[in-house]
Order: sequence, then structure tokens, then C-alpha cells
Amino acid sequence: MGEKITWSHGAGGKLMGELIRKTVLKEFSLRKAGQVGLDELEDGATIEIDGKQLVFTTDSYTVRPHFFPGGNIGSLSISGTINDLAVMGAEPLAIACSVVLPEGMEIEEFQQILRSANEVSKEVGVPIITGDLKVAERGGLDGPIITTAGVGLARKLIRNSGMRPGDKIIVSGPIGEHGACILACRHGMGTIFSDAAPVLAVVRAAMSTGEVTAMKDPTRGGLAAALNEIAEKSKVGIELDETSIPISQPVRGLCDLLGLDPLILACEGRVVMGVKEEDCDRVLKEIRKVRGGEQAEVIGRAVEEHKGMVVLRTSVGGRRIVPMPSGDPIPRIC
Amino acid sequence: MGEKITWSHGAGGKLMGELIRKTVLKEFSLRKAGQVGLDELEDGATIEIDGKQLVFTTDSYTVRPHFFPGGNIGSLSISGTINDLAVMGAEPLAIACSVVLPEGMEIEEFQQILRSANEVSKEVGVPIITGDLKVAERGGLDGPIITTAGVGLARKLIRNSGMRPGDKIIVSGPIGEHGACILACRHGMGTIFSDAAPVLAVVRAAMSTGEVTAMKDPTRGGLAAALNEIAEKSKVGIELDETSIPISQPVRGLCDLLGLDPLILACEGRVVMGVKEEDCDRVLKEIRKVRGGEQAEVIGRAVEEHKGMVVLRTSVGGRRIVPMPSGDPIPRIC
Repeated sequence: MGEKITWSHGAGGKLMGELIRKTVLKEFSLRKAGQVGLDELEDGATIEIDGKQLVFTTDSYTVRPHFFPGGNIGSLSISGTINDLAVMGAEPLAIACSVVLPEGMEIEEFQQILRSANEVSKEVGVPIITGDLKVAERGGLDGPIITTAGVGLARKLIRNSGMRPGDKIIVSGPIGEHGACILACRHGMGTIFSDAAPVLAVVRAAMSTGEVTAMKDPTRGGLAAALNEIAEKSKVGIELDETSIPISQPVRGLCDLLGLDPLILACEGRVVMGVKEEDCDRVLKEIRKVRGGEQAEVIGRAVEEHKGMVVLRTSVGGRRIVPMPSGDPIPRIC
Repeated sequence: MGEKITWSHGAGGKLMGELIRKTVLKEFSLRKAGQVGLDELEDGATIEIDGKQLVFTTDSYTVRPHFFPGGNIGSLSISGTINDLAVMGAEPLAIACSVVLPEGMEIEEFQQILRSANEVSKEVGVPIITGDLKVAERGGLDGPIITTAGVGLARKLIRNSGMRPGDKIIVSGPIGEHGACILACRHGMGTIFSDAAPVLAVVRAAMSTGEVTAMKDPTRGGLAAALNEIAEKSKVGIELDETSIPISQPVRGLCDLLGLDPLILACEGRVVMGVKEEDCDRVLKEIRKVRGGEQAEVIGRAVEEHKGMVVLRTSVGGRRIVPMPSGDPIPRIC
């Protein structure tokens, strides 16, 4: 008997990266159609057409419960794909939406999911132009799975490898709310609202105001995974200031109770970005004017030292390494 | 309690069309980014960029068993997306591949699936540039689900509405082999090989030789569903000649045994097309030179009469209507 898939392989951290490197990257021969290919393991890849970089991305959503405070699998899936395009510097053009439903699901419930998906599509003005529908028979699937794909046109291609020493790091709002929301649902520990939402308006505000050097939406594995990835790919050190990282009271409370680090809890409506130091104040000001960016903060900076590593200056004056999480603390948060 | 999802809703026939019209098309506000949008319910849709039509398509694959004679869910998913691009007249540029795996699956089994996917990608020369990986915990999912999306550039956009009276209808090879393969697997009725394969070479041969007016890969619901859709959208009648429709002996045998009509069994490596009458002989000749097209046949023609309907001239000289199937005879064939 060989090695088996565990849920940690799908949790967005170190284990997932290892699995993808030793399976997908090993088996696939053709992995590139533009500047960014599969090997880069970014939020999407690019297709070059007439010298333009078209960004192409996909994600499968398997979140349980599929309705949660602040959203459902429908709004989550459209937001997620919009965000993957946005953080690569692309203006989204169209979305494809493929649904697998379990037999016996109420059609009205499916409609509610579609309605929430539509609200996000309308908010950002991006059409859903094609899709697929499959049904899995009773016992084969425990709820809906939605896979969205998106195509966008890069205004300026933003790569995870673009951060430079001196850049400031901005996060667009309080972290960990989606992860905390799903955790609280699963453990029956009260209501925390998910932050699931498109970050397109925040990204547009930032990119039109200053130079954004790297950008990610910190989903599975949270801010810790996103910044470790940027630090590694950009070959910079990252220094975070714990006191400036926005965390809501409910999220902090849940983390204290469960002994969890909020830095590894997923966001689904936040973006973390590197910004040239001289542009930082203006970018922060513009982001704060935008819906979803009101609580943006500068949380740290890129440095020459400790390349590839994220270091946190704690609130009590100490320093600790923030490692790449092996995965997210719970499965199927997205 | 409201109406519930049944597996027939995912079977590609009349019931699925009705569900999509009363849910997806009703709830989604923005449905178009180019000449072909969601409302057309074609194999994909288009995004207009600088006057060019980029074709965008997606499908989720849930086939059970996920390994079957002649292929597996990996080769099937890549072929299916290549075929959806090809039948719209597009040259595929890139594929995205999103995987949901069940916890406990052997990693070696996942690699076999990737290897088969890679073989198709290499055969057609289309890279797989981005993707996603999720894991569903034990009991949540009965096997892998793969969702592929594809982007291609339309050389000449082919629509299901383009067939005109007088056009000849060509099918690229024996029908129903994928559906029969899965049926035989499920019922333990011997080995029938699936036809799952890309039809890109056949489509290229046809389009470069003559005028192709409409084209579909007859998947769920088989030739009957594909031709009813074309007849309805093109507002033509279709006349089929039963004796000229290629059907292999094993498929015919299985259909006789189970009392099934081979016209409603899915293909996953065939294409059916309308061709201008004067180009038909040359197109047929060129298709037959291509791998997967050796057994192509002219199986009928489009007529002015009985608009929107498919009529079969039977081998014994009678005529019968071939209705739009309500769905495929079994769930999860793709």
C-alpha cells in the first residue's frame, strides 16, 4: 500500500505544495502559455495573445457548511475567482461556473446559492458566461461543489516574486474572519461573519495610486502562508509588527479559546500587498476610501535580512519566526 | 418541501435544460462577454478581445468508475475540454485543471490520472497552466472530481445555430462507445472500450477542407441530444439514415440486450457536424485520413421540413422521430 491522500494535502500549506511538486509538476509536460506558467504556482497563470497577458485561474469550492454567516459557497466561489485575477493585476473579463450537486438537494437551496453568486458578479460587473451541471447520486457527495474559472486581462502583471527590500506591506482589513467563521460553525461556537467578498475595488484603488510590487489574497493558510510565499519567491525577508495587524475581537477571542494563531486563519475578502515605500501613505489612504478597505493597515515591511523568512515583532517586544503553516487548521474552509 | 435535484437533472437532456433555464439563466444578471453568452447554452461562450472571439469553456467530471476501459477521469477531462473548444471552431490555447480528491485515495492512483491527462495534453499540444487541489474528508466524496476549463481562439466561430437545409451531416466515428463502456462496467457486462479522445485533429481536417456550418461532440444524451439541439437552434429538420450510422458490434449487442437506443448513448471522442453539400465528399475524405476519423460516415442531411425535429429513416424503410432524450440512461458517465 502506497502513500495516501490526507485532508492536509488540500489545506494550502507546505504539504500541499510538496504533493503538487511531486505529482502535478512531475507528470505534466506542457505547463506554460505565457509569462506565468504552472511551475510558478501563483494564483493563476497567463496566456500570451498579441503581446498581451491574459490571466487564467480556477478554484474548486468544497466548503462545509456550504451556507455560513456572511455568505455561502456561491458568493465565495465568485469572489475567490475575482480575487485570484485581481491579485495578479488583471481586470476580470468573464467567469465560468461548474456545479456538482448532490441528488436530493432542494432546488430552492441551489437557487439561493446562484443568487449570492449573482450578487458578486453584479457588484464587480463581471459576467458568468458558461458553465456545467452534474449531479452525484445519493451517498456520493455530501453537498454542492462549485468550480469557478476566470479570465482577465493584465493591466500590469503582479507577481509574488516582485517584492523588494524597503517595500511596505499593507493588508486591506482584519484577518482570519473566514477561517474563524467556518471554525465557529463547525464547533458550534457562536456566529462570526465571514469576510468573503471581492477585493477588486481595493486592488484597483491601490494599483491606480502607487506601485504595487507583489500581491496575494491570504486564503488557505492565512496571512502566514501568503507572506511566506511572497518572501520565498521575492527572496526578501518580511518583518511584521504584531500590534498593527488588524484582528477583530471575535476572531481574537476564538483564537485564544482554541489556542490558534490568527495568522494562519484564512481570509476570503482581504488582500495583502507590497507597495513602494514612497507610495505607501497615498495607497493606504485610497484603499481606506473603498468598500472592504476601510480598516486597511500597514503591517510591516520587506527587508534585506533573513531572506525567505517572515519575522514577527510581538506586542511584548520580542521577535518570532512565522513559519509556513503545514496546512490550514481545518479542512474544507473553501 | 420544495422540488429536489434528481440525477436526471445532470444527465444532459431535456430535464437539465429546463433546470438550467429556470435557475441559472433566471438568477444570473450578466451573462455575456462576446458573441456567444450563457443564454445560448453552447459548449462554451466567447470573450471579445480586440475584435477576436476567445472561446471559454468548463466541465466537471464525476464519472464512476473513474478508471474504465480505454481511459480514466484524467484523459476524459482533458479530452472533453479540448473537444468543447474544438467544436466551437477554436484553436485551444491553455487548460486549467481543478481537482477534488477523497481523503484516503492512493497518491499513486492520482498520479496515474495525471499521467493520462498529460498524454492528451501532449497529443494535442495544449498546456495545462493552472489548477487547484482540494481534499474532501472520508465519507464526503466517493472518488475524484476533476473540473477542467479551457481557453481557445476562434479561427471561425461555429455555432449550433448555423446548419442550413441541404447541408450534409457527418459523424466522425462509431457512436455510443463511452456510454456503453460505462454501462458495461457498472453492470459487469464485459469490456467495451470508451472512445474518449480529443477530436481536435478531425475538426482541424474538416475546417481546413470545407465549410462546416454546425458542430457538436455528442456527449450526455448522445447523438440524439446533439442533433436535436442543432435542429432546434438552426431551425432546420434533420433526416438521418439509420443504415449509415456507424455503431460497433459490442455497442449494438449491449443495446439489444438492455433494450437501449444507441442514439442516446454518450460519445466522448466523436464529433457530429453539418457540412455544405458541395464540400461533403472532400471533408469526409480528409477526416478519414486523421486518427479517430477513419470510420467517419455521412449519416444524413438537413432539410426544410419538420423544423426542429430529427427523423430517422429506419433500416426497414420506415420513419420515426428521434426525440430529445429526457436524459442519459445512467448517471455520472462523464
